[in-house]
Amino acid sequence: MTAIATSDTALQLTRDGQLKHFLTLDGLQRPLLTDILDTADSFIEVGERTIKKVPLLRGRTVVNLFFESSTRTRSTFELAAKRLSADVLNLDINTSATSKGESLSDTLLNLEAMASDMFVVRHSQSGAPHFIAQSVTPGVAIVNAGDGRHAHPTQAMLDMLTIRQHKGSFEGLKVAIVGDVLHSRVARSQIAALNTLGVAEVRVIAPGTLLPRDVESLGCKVQYDMRAGLKDLDVVIMLRLQRERMQGALLPSEREFYRLYGLNTEKLALARPDCIVMHPGPINRGVEIESAVADGPQSVILNQVTNGIAVRMAVMSMAMSGQVAERTRGQAEGEQA
Amino acid sequence: MTAIATSDTALQLTRDGQLKHFLTLDGLQRPLLTDILDTADSFIEVGERTIKKVPLLRGRTVVNLFFESSTRTRSTFELAAKRLSADVLNLDINTSATSKGESLSDTLLNLEAMASDMFVVRHSQSGAPHFIAQSVTPGVAIVNAGDGRHAHPTQAMLDMLTIRQHKGSFEGLKVAIVGDVLHSRVARSQIAALNTLGVAEVRVIAPGTLLPRDVESLGCKVQYDMRAGLKDLDVVIMLRLQRERMQGALLPSEREFYRLYGLNTEKLALARPDCIVMHPGPINRGVEIESAVADGPQSVILNQVTNGIAVRMAVMSMAMSGQVAERTRGQAEGEQA
Amino acid sequence: MTAIATSDTALQLTRDGQLKHFLTLDGLQRPLLTDILDTADSFIEVGERTIKKVPLLRGRTVVNLFFESSTRTRSTFELAAKRLSADVLNLDINTSATSKGESLSDTLLNLEAMASDMFVVRHSQSGAPHFIAQSVTPGVAIVNAGDGRHAHPTQAMLDMLTIRQHKGSFEGLKVAIVGDVLHSRVARSQIAALNTLGVAEVRVIAPGTLLPRDVESLGCKVQYDMRAGLKDLDVVIMLRLQRERMQGALLPSEREFYRLYGLNTEKLALARPDCIVMHPGPINRGVEIESAVADGPQSVILNQVTNGIAVRMAVMSMAMSGQVAERTRGQAEGEQA
Repeated sequence: MTAIATSDTALQLTRDGQLKHFLTLDGLQRPLLTDILDTADSFIEVGERTIKKVPLLRGRTVVNLFFESSTRTRSTFELAAKRLSADVLNLDINTSATSKGESLSDTLLNLEAMASDMFVVRHSQSGAPHFIAQSVTPGVAIVNAGDGRHAHPTQAMLDMLTIRQHKGSFEGLKVAIVGDVLHSRVARSQIAALNTLGVAEVRVIAPGTLLPRDVESLGCKVQYDMRAGLKDLDVVIMLRLQRERMQGALLPSEREFYRLYGLNTEKLALARPDCIVMHPGPINRGVEIESAVADGPQSVILNQVTNGIAVRMAVMSMAMSGQVAERTRGQAEGEQA
Repeated sequence: MTAIATSDTALQLTRDGQLKHFLTLDGLQRPLLTDILDTADSFIEVGERTIKKVPLLRGRTVVNLFFESSTRTRSTFELAAKRLSADVLNLDINTSATSKGESLSDTLLNLEAMASDMFVVRHSQSGAPHFIAQSVTPGVAIVNAGDGRHAHPTQAMLDMLTIRQHKGSFEGLKVAIVGDVLHSRVARSQIAALNTLGVAEVRVIAPGTLLPRDVESLGCKVQYDMRAGLKDLDVVIMLRLQRERMQGALLPSEREFYRLYGLNTEKLALARPDCIVMHPGPINRGVEIESAVADGPQSVILNQVTNGIAVRMAVMSMAMSGQVAERTRGQAEGEQA
Repeated sequence: MTAIATSDTALQLTRDGQLKHFLTLDGLQRPLLTDILDTADSFIEVGERTIKKVPLLRGRTVVNLFFESSTRTRSTFELAAKRLSADVLNLDINTSATSKGESLSDTLLNLEAMASDMFVVRHSQSGAPHFIAQSVTPGVAIVNAGDGRHAHPTQAMLDMLTIRQHKGSFEGLKVAIVGDVLHSRVARSQIAALNTLGVAEVRVIAPGTLLPRDVESLGCKVQYDMRAGLKDLDVVIMLRLQRERMQGALLPSEREFYRLYGLNTEKLALARPDCIVMHPGPINRGVEIESAVADGPQSVILNQVTNGIAVRMAVMSMAMSGQVAERTRGQAEGEQA
């Protein structure tokens, strides 16, 4: 895999600043993020209708390219695409299978030649979606559904939508992200989005062994003590403990982790009384969050899921529009020349 | 899994007596069963059209939740949902996968939050669909596609539709169910439906080791001798020998079983000359039924398959209407209060 | 599996000469092949639209019956069917699973009874699609997606479409097929199509160990020396080296094969300067073709992929029309009698 492009912005935006791929939140400005949230808001209403369908991607072909399997994420993209009236092709490609005879590039070029309009890409290697957008099939809209430890931008945007729904705006908010930041592909995307949207403060709360070395440079404060970190919070975002990704003894034990960094009713009381509780799911009940909190009145975890469909519909329809605009301009310029 | 609700009726019907879930035939009255059969009849005609589609579930999301895999049953529900114009999401969830970190309830609540309208549930544990309808996601229409040894109500209803098609009505009919009643999820549903619809007599024909202890209390007579049991029959329903479910030596041998309880031309001649032969499939030729009978003029086995699509379309569309009615009333009452 | 019908023509055509199944190119005359190519041409335009959909198979049920798994081929048929607006059911049935209790015939009869209109069949045994069309479900349109070493007729037709696109017509063309002809299901179909469409010469270029004994009787010349064989060529079709199908030591080594029969820039220079290079994919780069050739200006490999969707849409819609015509005539005759 090549290095990630120095300018993500040039890669994912048209010259007019429209989204044409959705790879990362790095480099995206506040007006564009707000545009995504506003578009998603309009799709929330679609999900409440009897006929949950809009014809925006009718006759378009969306390929779910999952190099790393994730039934949950794939299902949300599949539903989002179907509600936009697209035709969906699900391909679960594990890396070993593609290496058997055909390169990743050849697989993608073949799918492009089948007149695919969009690839939703999940890959265990950071930068894979960028590589595809930049070097392989730039005319196919690429949506990042999670790449390595790098980013999971639709997850971050559904979190932003949930915060805005419950808090009205981002101004003055204090937000903490708690837990395994080191192995989280979503934490980086969340920190970027929160800063761009102008919250007052982003904190990360975790033991040192679960924090990346450069974490403060991402735009956040570090708190090792959860009780201190919860003070004055408007929003607390719990991360999933990625047990399967932990190599070696980063943690003394799950029980010890829960005692120190698990969110329970007693700790939550240290935050503001209207503090909302978020979690990307799936929840490890009793490992990072107490059931009473997950199911309690401050939890907005299921709202996040609902918002996930709306946000995915938003970025899919916007990226497709961007691709069409780019192609139309390309043709117009070709005719002028 | 909690105990099954004492009142299945309250669980699966709206206060107006409309179907809102389809879990079991226990407690459903004759007019409702007749209504299902009449609705299915109207869908039979749809299957004969060039364009086999009606817009009843357009824009609705149906999730096939198969905790126990069954390609055949899943396919019939998938086709039924697509012919109703629904969007379909297939999820094959084996129990081990859901236990890995996320509870069944959390999985279901997440799917509900994605604005799913209906779950078609297949589970190896009796009562799982009831549990979901009662305690987890009551606002999502639940259709039972087979739970443990308990019920397989759409299979029983497609059998009823097939009987009515060939016999005109249920009045005066003598019907036998032959074979492995003990392990059959469909036999219980069939006995319930036949009694409710008013046949003259239901017999079960099987060795004692393949009968549940309380079988007569379900509303049927027991015959250990097949030749005696076939006398005067209008309908004979063969069951599949569930070899994979038999633990230990309930049967001397397949060969011995076939000799005693297999249906062949010679034995079939003991029934009425217009007796029809049914089987839920897949057939074990030479184990419970002779090929000459399965493919003979009295066999209606393939009609059952065709009727299966129609019956599934019927219960899916009816349960969805019931959910909408319930929600509309709920809102109206909320506004009045 | 029974023997293949003596008259494939009678099997796959209606009495008016319309396609009703698409099993093999043997016996199909030039006007019909030209009709397929013209129909496919019209679908090429559909693939370039924003809304890549036509309603020709709306409300029809197409079942992808893959007894041998092939994600790539299955995906092209799935996309083709969806762009024709059909409902698609994907069934991956490996032979062991169907033998477990239910015969192939019973599986197919069940699918037919679910009101399926078309089976797209891939099977490791030669003749399986013919057997189905002839003896099992003659009223369901059967499309062969590759059977054993016998045929892969949609692949051959997409190759013909690609040749006609680039060369205008077939007249006077010299075409070579290079490589593992022995294990190729597509080579036989290609030789048949090229001869029917009237090219000037078909050559096969391969070591003797990779040629079937009767190869010249199929209508081609044999060349063991690649350099001599490339002379004056208009079209060179490389075959994939089916490493997984080679039993024993037919080849000294991959490296030796590449030296003798691999296509590189230097060898390609021996053909006509406007010679096009084709390959059915997936490519083994450096085994049968050099990357510089596969990605070079004479390569039309990705055009083949695009044309594959169009050709599949063509044969699917034509076979469906043929089935409808046959059924309508059958009913008319029944009424007259």
